[in-house]
Amino acid sequence: MPAHDRTPTSSGFYVTEEAPIHAENPVPTPSSPAPDILRCAYMELVVTDLAASREFYVDVLGLTVTEEDDETIYLRSLEEFIHHNLVLRKGPIAAVAAFSYRVRTPEDLDKAVAFYTELGCRVERRKDGFVKGIGDSVRVEDPLGFPYEFFYAVEHVERLAWRYDLYTPGALVRLDHFNQVTPDVPKAVRHYQDLGFRVTEDIQDSDGVVYAAWMRRKPTVHDTAATGGDGPRMHHVAFSTHEKHNILAICDKLGALRRSDAIERGPGRHGVSNAFYLYLRDPDGHRVEIYTQDYYTGDPDNPVITWDVHDNQRRDWWGNPVVPSWYTDASLVLDLDGNPQPVVARTDASEMAVTIGADGFSYTRKDDAEGLPEYKQGEYKLGHQL
Amino acid sequence: MPAHDRTPTSSGFYVTEEAPIHAENPVPTPSSPAPDILRCAYMELVVTDLAASREFYVDVLGLTVTEEDDETIYLRSLEEFIHHNLVLRKGPIAAVAAFSYRVRTPEDLDKAVAFYTELGCRVERRKDGFVKGIGDSVRVEDPLGFPYEFFYAVEHVERLAWRYDLYTPGALVRLDHFNQVTPDVPKAVRHYQDLGFRVTEDIQDSDGVVYAAWMRRKPTVHDTAATGGDGPRMHHVAFSTHEKHNILAICDKLGALRRSDAIERGPGRHGVSNAFYLYLRDPDGHRVEIYTQDYYTGDPDNPVITWDVHDNQRRDWWGNPVVPSWYTDASLVLDLDGNPQPVVARTDASEMAVTIGADGFSYTRKDDAEGLPEYKQGEYKLGHQL
Amino acid sequence: MPAHDRTPTSSGFYVTEEAPIHAENPVPTPSSPAPDILRCAYMELVVTDLAASREFYVDVLGLTVTEEDDETIYLRSLEEFIHHNLVLRKGPIAAVAAFSYRVRTPEDLDKAVAFYTELGCRVERRKDGFVKGIGDSVRVEDPLGFPYEFFYAVEHVERLAWRYDLYTPGALVRLDHFNQVTPDVPKAVRHYQDLGFRVTEDIQDSDGVVYAAWMRRKPTVHDTAATGGDGPRMHHVAFSTHEKHNILAICDKLGALRRSDAIERGPGRHGVSNAFYLYLRDPDGHRVEIYTQDYYTGDPDNPVITWDVHDNQRRDWWGNPVVPSWYTDASLVLDLDGNPQPVVARTDASEMAVTIGADGFSYTRKDDAEGLPEYKQGEYKLGHQL
Amino acid sequence: MPAHDRTPTSSGFYVTEEAPIHAENPVPTPSSPAPDILRCAYMELVVTDLAASREFYVDVLGLTVTEEDDETIYLRSLEEFIHHNLVLRKGPIAAVAAFSYRVRTPEDLDKAVAFYTELGCRVERRKDGFVKGIGDSVRVEDPLGFPYEFFYAVEHVERLAWRYDLYTPGALVRLDHFNQVTPDVPKAVRHYQDLGFRVTEDIQDSDGVVYAAWMRRKPTVHDTAATGGDGPRMHHVAFSTHEKHNILAICDKLGALRRSDAIERGPGRHGVSNAFYLYLRDPDGHRVEIYTQDYYTGDPDNPVITWDVHDNQRRDWWGNPVVPSWYTDASLVLDLDGNPQPVVARTDASEMAVTIGADGFSYTRKDDAEGLPEYKQGEYKLGHQL
Repeated sequence: MPAHDRTPTSSGFYVTEEAPIHAENPVPTPSSPAPDILRCAYMELVVTDLAASREFYVDVLGLTVTEEDDETIYLRSLEEFIHHNLVLRKGPIAAVAAFSYRVRTPEDLDKAVAFYTELGCRVERRKDGFVKGIGDSVRVEDPLGFPYEFFYAVEHVERLAWRYDLYTPGALVRLDHFNQVTPDVPKAVRHYQDLGFRVTEDIQDSDGVVYAAWMRRKPTVHDTAATGGDGPRMHHVAFSTHEKHNILAICDKLGALRRSDAIERGPGRHGVSNAFYLYLRDPDGHRVEIYTQDYYTGDPDNPVITWDVHDNQRRDWWGNPVVPSWYTDASLVLDLDGNPQPVVARTDASEMAVTIGADGFSYTRKDDAEGLPEYKQGEYKLGHQL
Repeated sequence: MPAHDRTPTSSGFYVTEEAPIHAENPVPTPSSPAPDILRCAYMELVVTDLAASREFYVDVLGLTVTEEDDETIYLRSLEEFIHHNLVLRKGPIAAVAAFSYRVRTPEDLDKAVAFYTELGCRVERRKDGFVKGIGDSVRVEDPLGFPYEFFYAVEHVERLAWRYDLYTPGALVRLDHFNQVTPDVPKAVRHYQDLGFRVTEDIQDSDGVVYAAWMRRKPTVHDTAATGGDGPRMHHVAFSTHEKHNILAICDKLGALRRSDAIERGPGRHGVSNAFYLYLRDPDGHRVEIYTQDYYTGDPDNPVITWDVHDNQRRDWWGNPVVPSWYTDASLVLDLDGNPQPVVARTDASEMAVTIGADGFSYTRKDDAEGLPEYKQGEYKLGHQL
Repeated sequence: MPAHDRTPTSSGFYVTEEAPIHAENPVPTPSSPAPDILRCAYMELVVTDLAASREFYVDVLGLTVTEEDDETIYLRSLEEFIHHNLVLRKGPIAAVAAFSYRVRTPEDLDKAVAFYTELGCRVERRKDGFVKGIGDSVRVEDPLGFPYEFFYAVEHVERLAWRYDLYTPGALVRLDHFNQVTPDVPKAVRHYQDLGFRVTEDIQDSDGVVYAAWMRRKPTVHDTAATGGDGPRMHHVAFSTHEKHNILAICDKLGALRRSDAIERGPGRHGVSNAFYLYLRDPDGHRVEIYTQDYYTGDPDNPVITWDVHDNQRRDWWGNPVVPSWYTDASLVLDLDGNPQPVVARTDASEMAVTIGADGFSYTRKDDAEGLPEYKQGEYKLGHQL
Repeated sequence: MPAHDRTPTSSGFYVTEEAPIHAENPVPTPSSPAPDILRCAYMELVVTDLAASREFYVDVLGLTVTEEDDETIYLRSLEEFIHHNLVLRKGPIAAVAAFSYRVRTPEDLDKAVAFYTELGCRVERRKDGFVKGIGDSVRVEDPLGFPYEFFYAVEHVERLAWRYDLYTPGALVRLDHFNQVTPDVPKAVRHYQDLGFRVTEDIQDSDGVVYAAWMRRKPTVHDTAATGGDGPRMHHVAFSTHEKHNILAICDKLGALRRSDAIERGPGRHGVSNAFYLYLRDPDGHRVEIYTQDYYTGDPDNPVITWDVHDNQRRDWWGNPVVPSWYTDASLVLDLDGNPQPVVARTDASEMAVTIGADGFSYTRKDDAEGLPEYKQGEYKLGHQL
């Protein structure tokens, strides 16, 4: 979308109509129709110390155990009625085994098989599912190297939304989205548009370099996002709370447990998505976002928002710094044999490089030629070297 | 208070009974009784651009204008019934003209005169007050170089606490406290104990170096605090909100106004005081804290809390970094002629030096010999130089 | 759905799979496909005093004026990007002129015409819309007597979600749903299922009498609901806030304005929908709900919840009484000529009769044979007659 | 204070300076000085089923058990550092055994003995206290028939304010106040002024009949209040939360536990005190208020607020009805032998009678001659009889 077709807003970003993305080296668009994805449904995480992970996700974050054994723990959020939103499986290397989406009908699995087969991807279908609680499932190594899963059949469990006796101050109520690190963001976006995703927001520079994009099936800002970086890797998985104070309560509890070092970034208000956020690192370093209050995106002509990569409020509306580890660290993803996918380096400019430090530039007000005021610059460039 | 008399708590800090502070070079204790101070009541700020300051304090922060003219603006918070909590006076150099306290009776002004006269301080009394709305007042250059004011007589104005039609999302309801930068914290604390203040919390190292202390008259954590640094200077003035979301709303609004660079530090949860906080910088660089939810301290045997300077949760319970400007920047204070007081350098170790960067050390868990985990270290030491 | 197929939950209600509703005297199911409705989009309200209504919706509730003239005011919520969510039109009789839904494509209007024409309903289509900001539109008198509108073409306006400088403490961010009063709830539900709505929750007694049902297109608990009573009438239109404190702030502001008599019921927590709520009455008596935090319902097998009409927590999870006016009062609806539709009395049992007062019975715990404890009974039956 | 000396405010109430109260039949003012009371410190409640009470106060409300045995449970709030704020003692009749206040020094106990001895009250002093955790204590049957206790010596326990891992969504952080039912409010106020209490607010009619008054030692709206009614009885004991959502969470949890019938009144916003409130009834019917966010009252000239008994926003700022049981029910209080004090009927007009039902009158706006609008009247007078 050329910059001159963008409409500036009073909030500093631009809006456009969604348009086909141009990618240099695109994944072909299959002739087979895409499966009708409802929503991101669960992530399967491989963790190296199951007890430590259980303590983090159950004792600290308060997710509900649907089922567990010595190898695997199935967890769900309080408003969920399907078997799980997160699977923790014990394994030798911390990684992501599946980004799993629920589809609208059992027949959508046939479509998924045809769609990915046409793309030449490795596809595996199991009538009894890959994990407990889920029935007929298709797993693929997608064209970008991510382990994607699709399923419809699932065991129903009780939706505990009304069980306020079980709520903690930081109660997690829904799985909200995934976030994937990939070297070529336009290529990823174009492919996921083929899979039926709609773009809601992105970050670009004036040369049209795309640093990140957010894509949705359910009518929120995203079910997944593509973050530019060395990949395929998993950037984070996000759960929702009802209110902002729930997120603050998680921070307070981590402090009380003397585990504040699990807080990587935030809490804060995102520019992109307008949501309130917090990023944590689990015992294996897997990143978990806690997220609340983005906006409805379900209309077909929902305005696509483009943020300037140099806008210092794009990732934190309050202009607070993004810590470097947030840009650089991510989790490995597995192929269908359970081996880590090789990581390919990003060749486009990195968002961190163009915004932080000696080579970077950010502004609070677009017309401020000098970028950030001195003491905010200090925060990045001088202060922490003292 | 020797370290061995401290009782460790399950939260990582220590409690003791309050005890007389040892200072190397103490201010003498006057034989004259101290005035009975009720509370911090208002600060008089000299600002260089009155219109810019008005926009910040009135349009952005929502303080109520009691009265104003071309030279001066009198502002109050929503629950206040005295004429003002903040005076903005136009002047050539940004500085603090008065830290003003309300006393219990008109007679306490005589005590104030005697107390400071005995100390050899410069004292000035005006029957009609130094500013509008305030009657008989005493101003002094206190032994630490700060311009302190005491008054009882004051014009009553309407307490607007019930006027929810006037509330903004970030409504400020009370003046909470002052914070003073001074080179010798024990000397300051000892003197303010003589003036009737009670210590509630402090930050020390194992050698007994005191980096900061909090002192109160009203039964909250503080009416003022002594922060170690080059002084006398004013570190910040703090207003309260009712809830944490009010503080977040101020950040959101600053973002919307493209003034997020006014956010210097936070929002976050303090270790000291347990309050939720945000630090802003006004157009002159005067620091304003927004603060909510500390605890009751009014019992005479209220346990005094001592934090280890190396405890990374002491200033932010979530372990988020204190930006260097927060340690180094502060406002000049004026003598009674309106000239800036000379600033004396701190000679004791600086909190910033012992906790940040190459020479510093902080821990999340006391028994972690390695201090902060690698990616939190990165936040200070490596990351921002990239 | 026979009671024996229901699964009881630990929260006191039942879940079932959604099933075709049996209605005694059903509206026929058209052979023409239904238009693909995205969501409830706006309501057109006729008000008798435009200035008084403007004061209520703009000055008190803070809705944004997109456009206005002497006859009509177009209002939207902060996260909306279409021209309006509410139209206030001056007229002689307070009533509802349209329940307007947005459809997925321009072609869905043709489907709407065919669908209602087959049902023998009066249908009117205007290429330039019935109100400003909306293009090609179809209005019908639906088989239940309600003025329904469908449109796709709409003027885009700026989404003000990031404009926190415009937020009030009680900021309304989305239109959430409509609620319609109709004598025969199963008949209404069956018809709206034909129109593509999905049932999410209902209230029944053990004889299968249905007192109310909630139906959705977007994946929330509802876009509209059918409430049993004399109809067709409009029960309420609902706007969302981000958090519960926003709703409390609206109450506080109404108190400050000495307009607390606009508060009809609440605030409280619904059993049905699990949302936090408040019901207001506008200057004409039109009922407006303020609503926040229901749950995701977008999966095709989303469990349908059935509440026992005698469960005293079904409408208020805290067991607080539903005021009689909430059951009895509602707004007239207009036909396409602008004349009020005649109101037909409900013949089935009324929810108010079976739950309040001499003939009614409610319980907090299902197995408490005595119903409500004495002092809660007093609240309904004795107390207020004193 | 004659009505003509009152200053009306823009919020609908009046302010005056505090003045000596006129009482028809006053308790004499002792020549002995009153003890210096710091704050309300704990209540000793006699309960008939210790297990049921433990479930209510510990499992539902989340108070912390400091110590317990088969007969007695000692509970505290999260910010407390003294041994307890509530004692539950098993006994045959539900009642209050002590309203206990902490005094400033051990010597204040001698003053308490002299003060009450001069008044001819029964006084008992125990060097080892009446309950665990408390040392030297004085208990009296005060001139109004209430069992008052005074102590200074107390066992310190850990202040758990930072232990966010122990917080529930409805965490109680402080004991805030007591509330006493007494037939002659001016008599009570005058006596408690003699004891050193300061009046902050009251409710009167234009004839000067006083229906209730609020009195403080610590600088909040009250440590205790006098509510007109048959007495001596205990109206309620109140605990504070940090925020309003904490109070809503208690309601939600009671709903989830199917104990919503423990909610007697609220949640709501008080007119008097401006605090957010909820009233619960414990298993014995003892009333507990949950309370947050009143205002600072510590200045000696703090304006006294007088509410018109006919102002429908005085007890609930949103105009929601006060349920009759709230006016009529209260707990017995015990004499020093443990026998219930006889209850004396109020002879002045009752607030319930003058404001609710056939004989009562309330208004939302002072100049509305017709009082409440029809549908709000219905809430009280007609509606609940249907």
